[in-house]
Amino acid sequence: MAVRKLYGIVSSTDTMRALASLFEHELEFEFIPLDLKAKASHHNYDPILSLSPFGQLLVFQDGDLTLLESRTIMRFISHKYGKPGKEQVYLVPKQQGIAATWIDVEDHQFDPPASKLRDELVEKTRNGLPTDETVVAEEEDKLIEILDVYEERLSNSKYLGGDRFTSADLTHLPNLYYLTGASVTVKHLFDERPHVRAWCTTILSRPAWIKVVETVQKIVD
Amino acid sequence: MAVRKLYGIVSSTDTMRALASLFEHELEFEFIPLDLKAKASHHNYDPILSLSPFGQLLVFQDGDLTLLESRTIMRFISHKYGKPGKEQVYLVPKQQGIAATWIDVEDHQFDPPASKLRDELVEKTRNGLPTDETVVAEEEDKLIEILDVYEERLSNSKYLGGDRFTSADLTHLPNLYYLTGASVTVKHLFDERPHVRAWCTTILSRPAWIKVVETVQKIVD
Repeated sequence: MAVRKLYGIVSSTDTMRALASLFEHELEFEFIPLDLKAKASHHNYDPILSLSPFGQLLVFQDGDLTLLESRTIMRFISHKYGKPGKEQVYLVPKQQGIAATWIDVEDHQFDPPASKLRDELVEKTRNGLPTDETVVAEEEDKLIEILDVYEERLSNSKYLGGDRFTSADLTHLPNLYYLTGASVTVKHLFDERPHVRAWCTTILSRPAWIKVVETVQKIVD
Repeated sequence: MAVRKLYGIVSSTDTMRALASLFEHELEFEFIPLDLKAKASHHNYDPILSLSPFGQLLVFQDGDLTLLESRTIMRFISHKYGKPGKEQVYLVPKQQGIAATWIDVEDHQFDPPASKLRDELVEKTRNGLPTDETVVAEEEDKLIEILDVYEERLSNSKYLGGDRFTSADLTHLPNLYYLTGASVTVKHLFDERPHVRAWCTTILSRPAWIKVVETVQKIVD
């Protein structure tokens, strides 16, 4: 029996965030994909609900520890399994504080418009539903302001958290992946900003992220 | 010149969260209150904006380090200044992971309905605006579900993060303070749940929190 288990909706950004962190740290784990559409009949659905008091469909088990919330899972993994001096981990509180700021910036600034745009431009299209252009226009304006700040930050720092790849970058990967897809109309917002574009290219081509995409595609197809 | 400075809107929950963390750790700092109403003319407003790329009105400076986001500030303070073995800090990754889960639970589950209820029942009343009863009813329903989970958790654990007071509890204080005010109509939701009620009483009476309330009242009055 695997010591570590991850339960999650396959293509959700939360699941992909947790998978990316597990792969980055080269940890062995069992992934138990949940199917939202088959929710009622899904045999994996009951055990997860019993572990997840708020009905969130992402649970990580590490031995007898059960964790909820994708950013908590990501933080926990890099804290417990990060190798000091290597990528992903800063040991000095100052550097950790800067990286932590960008994790919360993703959570509170980037994620709200990015998730709404992903819903409108990716999820709805996939499900044959019409896109709400008013929502797209509003959220695009917000995303533009945010990406201008990112462009400035990334012109002074290779990664958001500092000179090395950390959870502050990793936490952006799922929405970056969806929003920079070839047919997605907001892709140009990332492409037009040279430092943002270079950052996207660098972090989206990390072997751990490619493994996440392959894992998700294998199950979804 | 103070080594540590906190800039923030006096009575905002983000400012109160950061103040609580600073007082809990008995740190010396200078508090520079910002007045949202006097935004345009306020002489403190320009320097803060130059530090705060997203226009957030909370900035913490510790020497040459500038941090944004109240939960990042709170985490940083307890990480850098927490005394091992004392309250506030767990050194074992497992215990830290549990406490971290409840910080994100506050952020993603508790805060959205609690903040909307605070807007409707506290802010609007204070500003002589009518309350939107539809919003109140909807958000109350969400809060009830969340408080049921909290009641269960707190019947097995003295604090949310474990057997000691941590940032997982502290992060709830600002909204708990506003929503359990004597004239606030959702107060009974907290009072009806004995473990939630006892937890509220315990954490709202901590000396550091009382100091936050006094600090805010002194400036607002």
